Amino acid sequence: MRYLVLFLLSFSLFSQSDEEVISSIFSTALTESKSYNWLDHISNQIGGRLSGSLEAQKAVEWSKSELDKLGFDKVYLQPVMVPTWVRGPKEFALIETEPGITFNVNITALGGSVATPSVGLKANVIEVFGLEELEALGKEKIDGKIVFFNRPMDPKYISTFTSYGTAVDQRALGALEASKYGAIGVIVRSMSLRVDDYPHTGGLTYGNLPLSKRIPAAAISTKGANKLSDLLKIKPNLKFLFRQQSKTLRDSQSYNVVAEIKGSEFPEEVILVGGHLDSWDIGDGAHDDGAGVVHSMDLLNIFNKISYRPKRTIRVVLFMNEENGGRGSNKYKEIADRDGIDHIFAIESDAGGFRPLGFSFTCSDSNFLKILEWKKFFAPYYVNVFIKGGSGADISNLRKPNNILAGLRPNSQKYFDYHHTEIDVFENVNKRELELGSAAVASLVYLFDKYGVQN
Amino acid sequence: MRYLVLFLLSFSLFSQSDEEVISSIFSTALTESKSYNWLDHISNQIGGRLSGSLEAQKAVEWSKSELDKLGFDKVYLQPVMVPTWVRGPKEFALIETEPGITFNVNITALGGSVATPSVGLKANVIEVFGLEELEALGKEKIDGKIVFFNRPMDPKYISTFTSYGTAVDQRALGALEASKYGAIGVIVRSMSLRVDDYPHTGGLTYGNLPLSKRIPAAAISTKGANKLSDLLKIKPNLKFLFRQQSKTLRDSQSYNVVAEIKGSEFPEEVILVGGHLDSWDIGDGAHDDGAGVVHSMDLLNIFNKISYRPKRTIRVVLFMNEENGGRGSNKYKEIADRDGIDHIFAIESDAGGFRPLGFSFTCSDSNFLKILEWKKFFAPYYVNVFIKGGSGADISNLRKPNNILAGLRPNSQKYFDYHHTEIDVFENVNKRELELGSAAVASLVYLFDKYGVQN
Repeated sequence: MRYLVLFLLSFSLFSQSDEEVISSIFSTALTESKSYNWLDHISNQIGGRLSGSLEAQKAVEWSKSELDKLGFDKVYLQPVMVPTWVRGPKEFALIETEPGITFNVNITALGGSVATPSVGLKANVIEVFGLEELEALGKEKIDGKIVFFNRPMDPKYISTFTSYGTAVDQRALGALEASKYGAIGVIVRSMSLRVDDYPHTGGLTYGNLPLSKRIPAAAISTKGANKLSDLLKIKPNLKFLFRQQSKTLRDSQSYNVVAEIKGSEFPEEVILVGGHLDSWDIGDGAHDDGAGVVHSMDLLNIFNKISYRPKRTIRVVLFMNEENGGRGSNKYKEIADRDGIDHIFAIESDAGGFRPLGFSFTCSDSNFLKILEWKKFFAPYYVNVFIKGGSGADISNLRKPNNILAGLRPNSQKYFDYHHTEIDVFENVNKRELELGSAAVASLVYLFDKYGVQN
Repeated sequence: MRYLVLFLLSFSLFSQSDEEVISSIFSTALTESKSYNWLDHISNQIGGRLSGSLEAQKAVEWSKSELDKLGFDKVYLQPVMVPTWVRGPKEFALIETEPGITFNVNITALGGSVATPSVGLKANVIEVFGLEELEALGKEKIDGKIVFFNRPMDPKYISTFTSYGTAVDQRALGALEASKYGAIGVIVRSMSLRVDDYPHTGGLTYGNLPLSKRIPAAAISTKGANKLSDLLKIKPNLKFLFRQQSKTLRDSQSYNVVAEIKGSEFPEEVILVGGHLDSWDIGDGAHDDGAGVVHSMDLLNIFNKISYRPKRTIRVVLFMNEENGGRGSNKYKEIADRDGIDHIFAIESDAGGFRPLGFSFTCSDSNFLKILEWKKFFAPYYVNVFIKGGSGADISNLRKPNNILAGLRPNSQKYFDYHHTEIDVFENVNKRELELGSAAVASLVYLFDKYGVQN
């Protein structure tokens, strides 16, 4: 009897129009998604999970065990060595306008930064608004000082990721560039469009600088940055003191988590759905990228609930080390190339658990025109943004001339309120908005699974 | 010199394409909007402003004085008498499973409800999931009891307003209907898609019931509703006690606030932009409808900043008494009819300060087709939802065969997390999302002002 019922369910599904299937996907996501409970676990039971940490290892084990319950054909770990950076004790900073007159400010070490001396680093400050000012100032004005990069994200862009792009060079390259002019430390205004007291961490690079030339760098909250800037106007000789004991340890063993269900008709054609398991350490990585992890995991849960059996092979990949190295992405690509995997379509969710607005696609113009014909299926759910653009940091290396990559594009307005901070926590993700992300991803995967990609 | 500069600015604006003007509107809103500071004031300095309250009067005076600063041709108050309902001391409720064993739950009196006896009302409870169950149960099973309406909002719809529509009859009509079968009180599950401990108030109607037949009604938090439902399964004879001292006073004098700028070319054609000044009393009415108030007020601020002078007459109308009577809306319509005002277009923002997704339009099919040609102007801002549908409670009575009404449609996913609760506060509105609402409204008004409405 049980098989008969399943057969009838399957039959009835196959007779449904695409509109009807996608309607089922959305209503199923809003009523039977597992994403919110999973996100609760990964955020509150595991927490921040920087590559190489105990939490990252727990996230690997937990996500594998949850994927094991969903009925994939195989779930396995892909070993990868990852950089291991540790923050050490809570950072500390203050502004000293004159001896004995001090103001506390909130900072967080930038990921990858070296430590200050254990008593802290104290020096005069020179405020700049961009990397290009360093050359004009020259070694004379910078040597022995802390360089304070204070150019805010430009708020006028509709996508906050574009705003981020107007300022993040200071965080990524500030220490590398300032050190060339003799700076002894770097403080960067947090990448945020709000004025508040949460510092935002994030990666930096020292390039090929020898260890002895690397200077410590921290992000200061936007409120702290405004205070420092204001005080510098009236007390240009003030001193800034900060202390951080961050350091890079030896590489650690870690893993990508891969789950695969073989396609019933075209098993050689692979569709990849992914997010990244690692996160920064100071919050719980709920939006970045717990949301992407649970969106990806939810795919087979939703397909199971609507009794959809994919025609093409589907791989859910939870990448390790997106935040500070991309080693998981590189390793996945290396193995996929070796095995000759044909990724016809890959989508990453790594822009938060907010209400999905649409997708961006990396593909040929002719493929994009075909995709635009699917917009109508998403209109009832107000998922209307179909644009050409980047996919995701973990999957962009899978691009081939004839395949299609995509990124989920949720509402980005609040993304940088939380990004890389201690308030990127479960409570700041809305259940329905998260579930709609699962539905949007599953609907697009359904269409690519059904229709494939034309060469 | 000053005039020359203004002239040049005007000239340069008029030479801009619609795409360019709308781009300026959006970037101006994201950098020079006054909406967020205004919302801070109305939420935190004034607070909840139920019709007839001191706070409502403060909101009238404050908004008039702010509008006076913007350069309208005239700003005036439109007197209207409003119902005056007061909540009284904080409500109180508990479940008594047996004498001495009690569980506190959170309730809030429904707007317009009568009081319980001053010692509270205590009775057995009968749980139902809809008005239609009352007749089946009959007087025999209902008489002398408290009816507990516990049908949740259906989560499967994409618009939470649709979900609201699946349950709100219980709140609006529950007391009226239950009293016909001898119920002595009504408890209604809060209108929310979350499970939390915030009760949601909102209006009820007693229809033509005589005062002596009116029974007190309160909303219980969804968490409390689940608890009551669970306990009823094991203790069907439990008692529910609640106390509220709400009452309706005599009508009060209040006002709509109207600000007008005469059109330079077609002064007889009026475009109305509005929201409602009043709110429920238990929060600060930040989303409902502080956002709509500041979106409306921001219009002329933005037009000033981009040096746009409207060709048609623009009226900003801040309506009083949307929440529990609609008297301000009726009064506005009465005076507009008397004065023969030709509203060619009216838009209301009364769906929260969340990221705008688009608009719904009440208009003829031929006018809608014309409006759809404007969708392209909004696509760069991901404001893509152009649908036919309702406009807003305050302006729907302005519909004529040839005019167009519209409602701003922000992302609704979280609207009912806050709606009519103590957490509808400033902190739950995001600055950029609020500003984008101002931009969306101003852009649409710009297009209607420039092109008018064809008959």
